[in-house]
Amino acid sequence: MSSMKQKPLVTLTTDFGVVDGYVGTMKGVILGIVPEAQLVDISHLISPQDVRQAAYVLYAAYRFFPRHTVHLVVVDPGVGSVRHPIALRTPAGMFVGPDNGVFSYVMACEPVEALVELASPRYRLPEVSHTFHGRDVFAPAAAHLAAGVPIATLGPAVDDPVTLPPPSLEMAADSATGEILHADRFGNVLTSIGLLTWDKENLSLVPTFQAGEGGRPRSVRLRADEATVLIAGQEIRGVCRTYANVGHGQTLALVGSEGHLEIAVREGSAASKLNLQPGQTVILRW
Amino acid sequence: MSSMKQKPLVTLTTDFGVVDGYVGTMKGVILGIVPEAQLVDISHLISPQDVRQAAYVLYAAYRFFPRHTVHLVVVDPGVGSVRHPIALRTPAGMFVGPDNGVFSYVMACEPVEALVELASPRYRLPEVSHTFHGRDVFAPAAAHLAAGVPIATLGPAVDDPVTLPPPSLEMAADSATGEILHADRFGNVLTSIGLLTWDKENLSLVPTFQAGEGGRPRSVRLRADEATVLIAGQEIRGVCRTYANVGHGQTLALVGSEGHLEIAVREGSAASKLNLQPGQTVILRW
Amino acid sequence: MSSMKQKPLVTLTTDFGVVDGYVGTMKGVILGIVPEAQLVDISHLISPQDVRQAAYVLYAAYRFFPRHTVHLVVVDPGVGSVRHPIALRTPAGMFVGPDNGVFSYVMACEPVEALVELASPRYRLPEVSHTFHGRDVFAPAAAHLAAGVPIATLGPAVDDPVTLPPPSLEMAADSATGEILHADRFGNVLTSIGLLTWDKENLSLVPTFQAGEGGRPRSVRLRADEATVLIAGQEIRGVCRTYANVGHGQTLALVGSEGHLEIAVREGSAASKLNLQPGQTVILRW
Repeated sequence: MSSMKQKPLVTLTTDFGVVDGYVGTMKGVILGIVPEAQLVDISHLISPQDVRQAAYVLYAAYRFFPRHTVHLVVVDPGVGSVRHPIALRTPAGMFVGPDNGVFSYVMACEPVEALVELASPRYRLPEVSHTFHGRDVFAPAAAHLAAGVPIATLGPAVDDPVTLPPPSLEMAADSATGEILHADRFGNVLTSIGLLTWDKENLSLVPTFQAGEGGRPRSVRLRADEATVLIAGQEIRGVCRTYANVGHGQTLALVGSEGHLEIAVREGSAASKLNLQPGQTVILRW
Repeated sequence: MSSMKQKPLVTLTTDFGVVDGYVGTMKGVILGIVPEAQLVDISHLISPQDVRQAAYVLYAAYRFFPRHTVHLVVVDPGVGSVRHPIALRTPAGMFVGPDNGVFSYVMACEPVEALVELASPRYRLPEVSHTFHGRDVFAPAAAHLAAGVPIATLGPAVDDPVTLPPPSLEMAADSATGEILHADRFGNVLTSIGLLTWDKENLSLVPTFQAGEGGRPRSVRLRADEATVLIAGQEIRGVCRTYANVGHGQTLALVGSEGHLEIAVREGSAASKLNLQPGQTVILRW
Repeated sequence: MSSMKQKPLVTLTTDFGVVDGYVGTMKGVILGIVPEAQLVDISHLISPQDVRQAAYVLYAAYRFFPRHTVHLVVVDPGVGSVRHPIALRTPAGMFVGPDNGVFSYVMACEPVEALVELASPRYRLPEVSHTFHGRDVFAPAAAHLAAGVPIATLGPAVDDPVTLPPPSLEMAADSATGEILHADRFGNVLTSIGLLTWDKENLSLVPTFQAGEGGRPRSVRLRADEATVLIAGQEIRGVCRTYANVGHGQTLALVGSEGHLEIAVREGSAASKLNLQPGQTVILRW
């Protein structure tokens, strides 16, 4: 951490929706503790209790925030049960939420410097309900961390956090087999095949989610225009640079903004046109 | 009020939705008057012109904000008619909006220290439209209050604000009869039966909304596991601590995060499963 | 610009929706550059790639923000193609987004003091994707402008920005013929016939969108109660001051909050009741 005082910054990702006042209430709690905090919504329309979707949305966003940011995530089907509330610190930011795997994709990409259970009553609201830990436990913890409270004072270390299985990604000699992770508002479909980076006409593929057996996964170099994508019984030839490389309504494969293989329809919805769902298999062949 | 300078904080609750720019426009007006203000959205998806829903959502949220917060509420079916724009001050915060009952539930819980009509042209925009008082009257008033303008300078005292009938709650020797107030995004249903607090295996019920005839309503103490909830022709046995106390898809009664009796389905929607609507009767029998 | 240091203020208008984390990601980028910025959402639910709707929503909102505001607009069907990223400065604020006409209505109302292409790599993220210029190009430019970087340093001047045809508005001796611009959440329908201002029982109409042939369009004065509105085969008599001037469920014409002719149904939806769509013709006859 810099010795210079940073402006506290807290992001919020929940499945609380935007009709009820739950998110506003959490913000009231945070600002009661750290009045000068910047608050940024990432999403409050995670599908109810969809921990995996929250993990993906957080993964796509956190790297673009300053390193002193505290990311508060409340997608918590186990509220009131035995699951632990946790906080973790990485070089790319701090994270607060339930220990249910929602930070799995972050932990796959960032070294965890500290991981604690939010056990200290001092950093909770005086009364903790059985049903709204976002307000009573997680928001106060995020606020105190943003205010500069050292993470270790919030509770004891946790050694074995719950983790989701990583997105599937299997590397073979001439192909990578992955899965659909997410369809966004435009119907663009993001997959687990990444990270892909351009180098002139070639693509370099360095598997993110540690698909290799033992040690670092191997990197692959391939010709973009000779690659083929297989998805939902369809074959898409070539990987494009951008939507404008094909005609209106045409399907294309490209490298999405987070460096993953993306399937899109120009000015249309690939999710609808090809009937794509998270979890379906996608193959990149070269 | 503290002598220490507080960071101005304004919350916004409207039925303006999030497609049009109306909320953003109000924020522009506020920040033109008090540039350092923190702005927090509570909800902009109150059902159009549903004053009672707005009153409930505000009621559930305001207590978790700092006491110097100004809560701006614009759910205003009578815009342009004779209804007055008002502001009120309580020990728990200030409130700005139309005099249509939207602050009824707050006023049932907090002493009103001052209540004025927003009559002074000095604290409005120079031109006031007939259709958007949120922008032209309410946002400027909230901004000036947040900036420290004394409430009494905004206009003359109002003695007889419009109030909604309080949520129904009738206490009998062995039961409390109330109504459904709200169904949230998860389909959890909040009722007027509260406040309930846990004391080991027992629940203490202290009616919030002044249901007693004359004087303070009596408090009741009951065994949670022996209580029964009757709702929409269904009987639910026992009041649980949290969702995880029942199996997936099971219906339960519990104490919601604001201390009111709540009906829920674990990882499901009670509103859908039991076909519940605001206004329906609910009985807690002990 | 004032010599006094203003608090940086950036608004955001996109078609990114509120489910994915795209908007949050842009805010992370902005706050990494200008940590003390105020961020205000205008709308993120512009219909996907609907440049004209975005132009209207921005038009209705920008005048109510302080003059040092930077308005960031990302509705960008041409991302990755040859369209230029631009920034412009007017006396009423600065604007950042794609050169696709989204600032047309602003430019019709405000003198453009500077208009540049966002060409300098120094004011972009180090790596620019082909698909998310909101994050990689526009957000950094808006942040640097808000931080006080002079607009001319961002890139070379642009002389011929793309402009949408202005909303149609034809003035005749006894009528004005325009079009529907927008239907809001309430089903209130805003038209291109404006600006209208009240003067006792009369209305003054000064065409905004330069409909005249050569020179300034002429201004007209008319009796509100004698005017007639023709829309979708219906005739509405008189222009009212506010919704409360008619009975529940009645259709009326009035002057909307931005000074344009508006068609509404009291406590109902004119868009639904009369089946109104953007682009349809509306006539005001006097």
